Amino acid sequence: MPDILGNAFERVQTEVDSAFDAFLPVPQDSRARLVEAMRYAAIGGGKRVRPLLVVASAELFGVNRSAAINAGCAVEAIHAYSLIHDDLPCMDNDDLRHGKPTLHKAFDEATAVLAGDCLHALAFDILTQPDTSTDPFVQSELVLTLARASGHEGMAGGQMMDIMSEEEDYDLRQVTRLQQLKTGALLAASVEMGAILGRVPPEGRGHLRAYARDIGLAFQIADDLLDVEGDEAKAGKALRKDEEQGKQTFVTLMGVAQARAQAEMLVEQAGRHLAGHGEDARLLVELARFIVRRDH
Amino acid sequence: MPDILGNAFERVQTEVDSAFDAFLPVPQDSRARLVEAMRYAAIGGGKRVRPLLVVASAELFGVNRSAAINAGCAVEAIHAYSLIHDDLPCMDNDDLRHGKPTLHKAFDEATAVLAGDCLHALAFDILTQPDTSTDPFVQSELVLTLARASGHEGMAGGQMMDIMSEEEDYDLRQVTRLQQLKTGALLAASVEMGAILGRVPPEGRGHLRAYARDIGLAFQIADDLLDVEGDEAKAGKALRKDEEQGKQTFVTLMGVAQARAQAEMLVEQAGRHLAGHGEDARLLVELARFIVRRDH
Repeated sequence: MPDILGNAFERVQTEVDSAFDAFLPVPQDSRARLVEAMRYAAIGGGKRVRPLLVVASAELFGVNRSAAINAGCAVEAIHAYSLIHDDLPCMDNDDLRHGKPTLHKAFDEATAVLAGDCLHALAFDILTQPDTSTDPFVQSELVLTLARASGHEGMAGGQMMDIMSEEEDYDLRQVTRLQQLKTGALLAASVEMGAILGRVPPEGRGHLRAYARDIGLAFQIADDLLDVEGDEAKAGKALRKDEEQGKQTFVTLMGVAQARAQAEMLVEQAGRHLAGHGEDARLLVELARFIVRRDH
Repeated sequence: MPDILGNAFERVQTEVDSAFDAFLPVPQDSRARLVEAMRYAAIGGGKRVRPLLVVASAELFGVNRSAAINAGCAVEAIHAYSLIHDDLPCMDNDDLRHGKPTLHKAFDEATAVLAGDCLHALAFDILTQPDTSTDPFVQSELVLTLARASGHEGMAGGQMMDIMSEEEDYDLRQVTRLQQLKTGALLAASVEMGAILGRVPPEGRGHLRAYARDIGLAFQIADDLLDVEGDEAKAGKALRKDEEQGKQTFVTLMGVAQARAQAEMLVEQAGRHLAGHGEDARLLVELARFIVRRDH
């Protein structure tokens, strides 16, 4: 990983952890267990790809750093809640996440459902706080963007298509649509939220949306490749699940070689959408490259 | 039920159903099952106490009716998601809700988790749409109010205290706190959101908060009484669960007679907080009375 990206990840990881620590003081009553569970899921885990996307996009438009970190925490809270709920026995039934027991294993299922719900609410709480933006117009656009990207028309809708894909034989068009919703919508929202914080009007965000669409697909192709070729210890979670569940993925539909070539092509294309920003977009370009080359 | 209240309930029920119908068109792909599940939970069930509170509060301040219905739908979407998740086998494990099978019985557990999550996101989507308010200041205050009332500092926090109460022996102070969070926070948010739509500044909402606090407790005392004395057929859900689970409630701590007297006292007190509004507050006063006299 180039220094510029490694340093950026490290900095964002520290800032996001510290922001969540401040958002989630442990109360002195029986809600303590709930907040401990939220902290278990939100602090110290994950690469923080989504917050880094918010920050890197916001940097293009001179946005205040702590505002971008707050918005990044909101996206990450949504991502974290979705992982908690996806890991539940009635969903993917996973025991391991980020190299530690999943939340329902470390606590219990009821606490996992509730902690996920609370991180979900926290996301919108954070977006409407003055530390994120003092401009209600910006706040409300952030809320609508994140709500739309995470609900039935976005991430959760994609998750439903994913569940149904165990029974239906999806073709490449359907797998692409599924992944655009399941993974792509939240990555795209992250990039868009940086621009919203920078008060870029919707008509000025086309190139960012194009970048986000390309890295979203590249990200999922890379995930499918990792599911086939990856190392469980590095991934910190169970792999080889797609095949087990009989799901069609980019790899089953295209083969390993073509899937890898497609991901590389998408990443180069993503970078070209940002050419107008010159060197300022270096972090977003490196982040796109990292997405297909990561080993976890 | 007096005509004024019966008519108001009927009208709100029709309007809320019709608004959810418009918010939730069924897509032509494998997300159909998810949206059908959301519709199952959101349309045609429940008394709509919370939307009626929003509407009745908004009426005091001359708010446009469809704006109030939208905000009422947002609160009801949160209420509906919480019921879906509470009914799950890992939570209360209930088979019946509003007289029909609970969502995970009618569909399956994974769909229930996801449909709950999607109604949760829909609430914030609705609040930031121009049909709810064209003023971003109002939108973002609605979002913060609802997010705070439903997350770990509100409804879901109370739900966690409720779970812990099976093992800990709560006293009256703790049961009161639990119920203020679990039930009271969302009822209070409903009343407050009417005032926010009416652009009443926070310092002008004290009497509404006092009203909401009183009816919130009265509502829960009435629920505890119904759990002991109610008719399962009318309630449309399983009763006698508090005793089974060894939970302390207002009834176990105060006895039936004192609990009933306390609820009646709170309702009269709630009405007095609204005296300044005169006849305009008649609906809110009748609603408070209904809350302790309902048989389901």
